[in-house]
Amino acid sequence: MKLPIRLLAFVALLVTAVPVQAATVSSPDGRIVVTLDVTGEGVPYYSVMRDGKPVIDQSDLGFNFTDSPPMRRDFKIIGETTATADTRWEQPWGEKRFIRNNHKELAIALQQSDPGARRMTVRVRVFDDGVGFRYEFPDQASLKTANIAEELTEFAIAGDGTAWSIPAGDWNRYEYIYSKSPISALSTVNTPVTMHLADGPYLSFHEAALVDYSSMWLRRMRGTTLRAELAPSSRGAKVVRHGAFNTPWRTILITDSPKGLFESAMELNLNEPNKLGDVSWVHPQKFIGIWWDLHLNHWTWASGPDHGATTAHTKKYIDFAAKHGFGGVLVEGWNKGWDGTWFGNGRDFSFTEAYPDYDLKAVTDYARKKGVDIIGHDETGGNIANFEKQMDAAFAMDQKLGIEAVKTGYVADAGGLISCNADIYDPCKGEVYEWHDGQRSVQHHLAVALAAAKYHVAIDAHEPVKDTGLRRTYPNLVAREGARGAEYDAWGVPKNPPSHVPTLVFTRLLSGPMDYTPGVLSLAGRGNTPIPSTIARQLAYYVVIYSPLQMAADTIENLAKYPQELKFIEQVPVDWSDSIMLDGAIGEHAVIARKDRHSDAWYVGGVTDDKARTANLTLDFLDPNRSYTATIYRDGDGADGLGDQAAKHRIAIGTRTVRKGEKLAVPMARAGGFAISLAPTKR
Amino acid sequence: MKLPIRLLAFVALLVTAVPVQAATVSSPDGRIVVTLDVTGEGVPYYSVMRDGKPVIDQSDLGFNFTDSPPMRRDFKIIGETTATADTRWEQPWGEKRFIRNNHKELAIALQQSDPGARRMTVRVRVFDDGVGFRYEFPDQASLKTANIAEELTEFAIAGDGTAWSIPAGDWNRYEYIYSKSPISALSTVNTPVTMHLADGPYLSFHEAALVDYSSMWLRRMRGTTLRAELAPSSRGAKVVRHGAFNTPWRTILITDSPKGLFESAMELNLNEPNKLGDVSWVHPQKFIGIWWDLHLNHWTWASGPDHGATTAHTKKYIDFAAKHGFGGVLVEGWNKGWDGTWFGNGRDFSFTEAYPDYDLKAVTDYARKKGVDIIGHDETGGNIANFEKQMDAAFAMDQKLGIEAVKTGYVADAGGLISCNADIYDPCKGEVYEWHDGQRSVQHHLAVALAAAKYHVAIDAHEPVKDTGLRRTYPNLVAREGARGAEYDAWGVPKNPPSHVPTLVFTRLLSGPMDYTPGVLSLAGRGNTPIPSTIARQLAYYVVIYSPLQMAADTIENLAKYPQELKFIEQVPVDWSDSIMLDGAIGEHAVIARKDRHSDAWYVGGVTDDKARTANLTLDFLDPNRSYTATIYRDGDGADGLGDQAAKHRIAIGTRTVRKGEKLAVPMARAGGFAISLAPTKR
Repeated sequence: MKLPIRLLAFVALLVTAVPVQAATVSSPDGRIVVTLDVTGEGVPYYSVMRDGKPVIDQSDLGFNFTDSPPMRRDFKIIGETTATADTRWEQPWGEKRFIRNNHKELAIALQQSDPGARRMTVRVRVFDDGVGFRYEFPDQASLKTANIAEELTEFAIAGDGTAWSIPAGDWNRYEYIYSKSPISALSTVNTPVTMHLADGPYLSFHEAALVDYSSMWLRRMRGTTLRAELAPSSRGAKVVRHGAFNTPWRTILITDSPKGLFESAMELNLNEPNKLGDVSWVHPQKFIGIWWDLHLNHWTWASGPDHGATTAHTKKYIDFAAKHGFGGVLVEGWNKGWDGTWFGNGRDFSFTEAYPDYDLKAVTDYARKKGVDIIGHDETGGNIANFEKQMDAAFAMDQKLGIEAVKTGYVADAGGLISCNADIYDPCKGEVYEWHDGQRSVQHHLAVALAAAKYHVAIDAHEPVKDTGLRRTYPNLVAREGARGAEYDAWGVPKNPPSHVPTLVFTRLLSGPMDYTPGVLSLAGRGNTPIPSTIARQLAYYVVIYSPLQMAADTIENLAKYPQELKFIEQVPVDWSDSIMLDGAIGEHAVIARKDRHSDAWYVGGVTDDKARTANLTLDFLDPNRSYTATIYRDGDGADGLGDQAAKHRIAIGTRTVRKGEKLAVPMARAGGFAISLAPTKR
Repeated sequence: MKLPIRLLAFVALLVTAVPVQAATVSSPDGRIVVTLDVTGEGVPYYSVMRDGKPVIDQSDLGFNFTDSPPMRRDFKIIGETTATADTRWEQPWGEKRFIRNNHKELAIALQQSDPGARRMTVRVRVFDDGVGFRYEFPDQASLKTANIAEELTEFAIAGDGTAWSIPAGDWNRYEYIYSKSPISALSTVNTPVTMHLADGPYLSFHEAALVDYSSMWLRRMRGTTLRAELAPSSRGAKVVRHGAFNTPWRTILITDSPKGLFESAMELNLNEPNKLGDVSWVHPQKFIGIWWDLHLNHWTWASGPDHGATTAHTKKYIDFAAKHGFGGVLVEGWNKGWDGTWFGNGRDFSFTEAYPDYDLKAVTDYARKKGVDIIGHDETGGNIANFEKQMDAAFAMDQKLGIEAVKTGYVADAGGLISCNADIYDPCKGEVYEWHDGQRSVQHHLAVALAAAKYHVAIDAHEPVKDTGLRRTYPNLVAREGARGAEYDAWGVPKNPPSHVPTLVFTRLLSGPMDYTPGVLSLAGRGNTPIPSTIARQLAYYVVIYSPLQMAADTIENLAKYPQELKFIEQVPVDWSDSIMLDGAIGEHAVIARKDRHSDAWYVGGVTDDKARTANLTLDFLDPNRSYTATIYRDGDGADGLGDQAAKHRIAIGTRTVRKGEKLAVPMARAGGFAISLAPTKR
């Protein structure tokens, strides 16, 4: 019995417990059709068609438990409900101001014929650009506690194609160079994992609303069939939940083009609305920091003669920030705990006590006077037990000092994060090691967000759990690292190749903002090793990589050497009302246009891989009724991102007046890029 | 300080705790060289060269624990010892009577610079045909209990090539059709996994002496680098060991040819010698059984009008066995517990109580009178807790009734085996689910062997943990299934393809005997579906597939229809003094010759895949001083293993006199084969 409901609400109706047949639901435009059913043996499954062709073949659904029989077979469908939604909501900050949420929904209620007659619901929402589904467990006596050994969700991709992926099941979190391979050659991968089927469609697999559950890796079982593999736990059960609960949404973007992947808002739409209320205290901003000098080994995090985080250094950075309009100054190495061997244990970190040569009060007073914030830094060394003990006091202190945003870190050894227990709510029983993306870590990251919100502190988590769109529900989760960022250009072996950012755009960056920390205008890493990038490309990053917190990562001495380029960084916004992709091919190039949220200006950024190419832009996104001054920062003649330092710094900066519809051809050198500001001319 | 010791003993000398440099050890013939060392960061590693070329590049060694820091870095080598061995030992039964154990050994003692100063030893033994290494942990206060979260052993294969593998991490145990793929396209695989490097060598990865530890899967991490992944446990830690312990040997066969893989005895040589003493009560034999009719759905395991395991049916089988010289009759479905839903829980199985229509005493008395054994059947349904409660009583009963061998079974659902606890020695605390190849299961299978040995019962385990050569230490472990066997020819979708057995020979069968249950002479499965095999191929299986327990799997009515072919089965031995490979290519064809242990007869068997081919044999293994009557059972004119039933049954049977060195060209049809008995003519 189907009851379509439009607009705001969906209505759940329980149909009488008569076994029903296969149920289908399609996208609003009808192109995607999802079927939910059970096999002859009662194994629940789903499948996805698009334009009449299979995208996901029959894929099993189910669970193994550590202490109960599997919920895998002998199910009957005892009811189904449907709903539709077509709403619009506003982000307090983001890549877009208004987001349309248009989908159709189907939920099937399943009951197993085991003695416990266990039930679960599978709910699917189909958008024009993809599918999301999740499991919902009611409170039931026969499953008071779900000790999940494994989630058995399959993704039987209907044919082969190309995949862009990073491995999972290793320990170095998400910090890998992406691999490009046939889908049929994948092993175990993290999400987002993006694919281009030989048949045509572009897919990206991920999850939304990862709360109190373990992260989903994807393991290729056979052929082109992947299956969920949850990050393990020292406790045995990968997920432990009591009573009623929902799993995260398993998401599959399905689009005609890479542009479709980029522009999708499905992940955010599957997350719960804002629970924090007024978040006007979350301020998108740009910052500089005592950071690059640390990574170049000029300064140390630890105390000593080369200590980076000193009052004197910081005041210099505050002055520079004030002069050039940067909202914040990040200071790393300010706190006790860096001396000795913190790596792999993090036990000595204090998040309230500063080193003697860093006067926390003097520095924050000075910053406030200059109209600049200090951005806090809480590196945990993976010891989440230690951080949780101190975080309330630390965030309270931050609020008092005017520290509005904190960069957290979870640098850990192969063993993983150090925790007290599998369950954050239990008293500490001794150290256990947990995966940085297991349930315990996911609980921790949300606890941090809530503790920080209490004190109006925004969180930028490095070495985090993957982004799954929780920024909608907790808008103080402003950014994460969660991929190889610019620090690898300091000391990485190798440094990030030119295909890296053009791949991130279609993989990591689909999941949410990344604190990549661009802007190393000197284009040189540790020991003067060359960074494969032109200087114009560094400017492009501010448009191509979305983050409400963007760093100009280089030292202030280096930034000062490039005043023209720095000017672009000073001007480029970090909060947008719209974002569109003008052109792009995964791992090859990307050209993105964004509209400033606080003015009528547009910005365009483009990057290319190790091939020089010309970006052919049509400025059809501009207002029709006005002209714009385009300031174009592009690779100059003889520029070469893989050449010597001189070649990498060749930039051509020019202006011209443009109007809607005009075409621009912007050449990009190898490992190059461009950035364009489009300011409306005075009427 | 190296001290080479020849012959029987190896001597361990502890060198004073001065850090030493990289250590190497080579095979007796010098072709293989293994290096053991630590990196600059103190990460222990090994690498393998052969003929001066890399086979395994630098591969890390180490462990993660659930409750301790990793043992992965900051190690120093504090001592090394070497040894050599060149001995010969005799198997009580087997594919070969005498086995040569010729290897060189190196052990490095490692100490970590962590506060606990934890130690471990890595011991490697290098044979002319491969490498085995294991970790050894001493009793140490800083690691009283090793709660292993993961073993981090890498296998950085030096280049790409072809791999033949079955997946791991799924639930259907080892019952898969093998995949042939590039090494660089592997995902997670079980062992043995066999490879042919583009560079030339043949490799096979496995383990030896899997005792009180979890099985090792191999997960491809990147490129052609695999890493150990231990089968999980509901308890969290995949392995829990107290005090001093050794891991299983991780083994890498490295040979010039597939023949070298087949003829290697490295796995047995790495196992401990026989601990059971006199095992003359273990009798290799052939058997028939109430089995195929069950898989064809003619009879039922459960009670009812079509119950298979009745006194009347069994007496018929006993008569047939006696008439045709079969030592045993297997009877499945004899015991209470098959009614209702045993699948996925196995709770109701009794291993001592028979159904009312099966008079256990009458049947075993009748069998004894006829000179035939009943082969017991203990299907656990995966409920190892239930079996462990009853097994002592069951084996005691078996001994009393003259049941000398028992086929056990572990058919389980996706959730795995049902156990009481993670540790067999703890009191039962409630049901938990364990992997069929995790530590708990490994403990269980050894406990079964020991319990059975007490009562002089041999064990043939189906749906078992993989064979790792423990038959040397416990020679009542006569056979296992552990791959797709002939039952899939009854109802498998698809049935075993013609490439299956030619692949098993170089993968599964490298690990030990397989109870494949050949001899379905009717060549038809359920509903008369055609089995892709000629009848001569069925005879070849008795030589190509080694097992001390071989079944003639068809119904006695069907066996009786093919008296000439049955004659071969009646004659073929199941215990050998020597086994050699005459020809073979992985997945394509295999020709094997074996010498009867109890006479001077030789037997040759050959199989091919879906391509017809001629086996060109040179009988250079025969004694030079005598002639032999060769009885050749080969595919006849017009035979076709993929044709209709008539074509499949076309066989040519002939005899000729042959002598050492003669050549025979034996044609094989598609999905065909041949078998030859070579009986010395009277002098």
